[in-house]
Amino acid sequence: MIILGIDPGIATVGWGVVARDRGSFRYIDCGIISTPAGMRVERRLFLIHQALSDIIKRYTPDEISIEELFFHSNQKTVINVAQARGVILFTAEENSLPIYEYTPLQVKQSIVGYGRAEKKQVMEMTKVFLHLDRVAKPDDAADALALAICHGNSSQSKLYGLRTIKDSKKTGGQ
Amino acid sequence: MIILGIDPGIATVGWGVVARDRGSFRYIDCGIISTPAGMRVERRLFLIHQALSDIIKRYTPDEISIEELFFHSNQKTVINVAQARGVILFTAEENSLPIYEYTPLQVKQSIVGYGRAEKKQVMEMTKVFLHLDRVAKPDDAADALALAICHGNSSQSKLYGLRTIKDSKKTGGQ
Repeated sequence: MIILGIDPGIATVGWGVVARDRGSFRYIDCGIISTPAGMRVERRLFLIHQALSDIIKRYTPDEISIEELFFHSNQKTVINVAQARGVILFTAEENSLPIYEYTPLQVKQSIVGYGRAEKKQVMEMTKVFLHLDRVAKPDDAADALALAICHGNSSQSKLYGLRTIKDSKKTGGQ
Repeated sequence: MIILGIDPGIATVGWGVVARDRGSFRYIDCGIISTPAGMRVERRLFLIHQALSDIIKRYTPDEISIEELFFHSNQKTVINVAQARGVILFTAEENSLPIYEYTPLQVKQSIVGYGRAEKKQVMEMTKVFLHLDRVAKPDDAADALALAICHGNSSQSKLYGLRTIKDSKKTGGQ
């Protein structure tokens, strides 16, 4: 199974593709979609849709794993990030790809083993999971790879019945 | 010029189409796009894109006027509304349609003449502007018609140089 992990944003969307075969992971590719700050928002959203559609065509993932977006009262960019995330969810649905969402806490639990792990630990463990020589760069791409592994771990537990699937959920109603 | 006004939302998107010719307005059509609350968010976003694409094809608007979204700390649905708004902005750009955004205050100022006008007054004046027999229903459709008129008034002032265009702005960077 090929999993596309996505770390949503308006200026930078991180993406990472991994294959999961019989419980082990294989790194395929990762990167970021960047849009310039001065550009009209609707144009940036259009570019994100275009780039993501290309990535889906190139790597033909079976499932998508995306970070859940929370409402932080001090986060000025939350509306633009949510707008970009809306376009990402739409693009997944347009390609009939099932999409699963995970909180940062769930990613940390899945990758490192506990929810208060530091970012650096998540990156190191992501490297180990994917048999990479060094930590993936840039950070948003590494975050996307971690999201893909997190979903792979959940799907695996679903397949092998080793753990409950409670830490994974499909995007629901509002 | 044909203007499509849009009141964004995830459960209900209001839309209204008006023509503006030599400073007067003509009503063309209005309605709402509804998506069921129990449906997956990505499916709801897909339906909004589909319905909006159909409306654009049917009425071939020249410009789009949309309500600006604000960050209210007590608004639980803001992320889903912003996700829907992202898909709406994307759909406008996909159709090469210029999109302008207005705050509720700007709409009230433009339609009634002052920013603290009540919703009912805005609806009554929208009816007068469009030579309708009764107030448009449902409310989200009426709000969308008001947004279309608000933009028509701004464009008009731009064309005739009667007022400054400061109350209209294109969607900018983040």
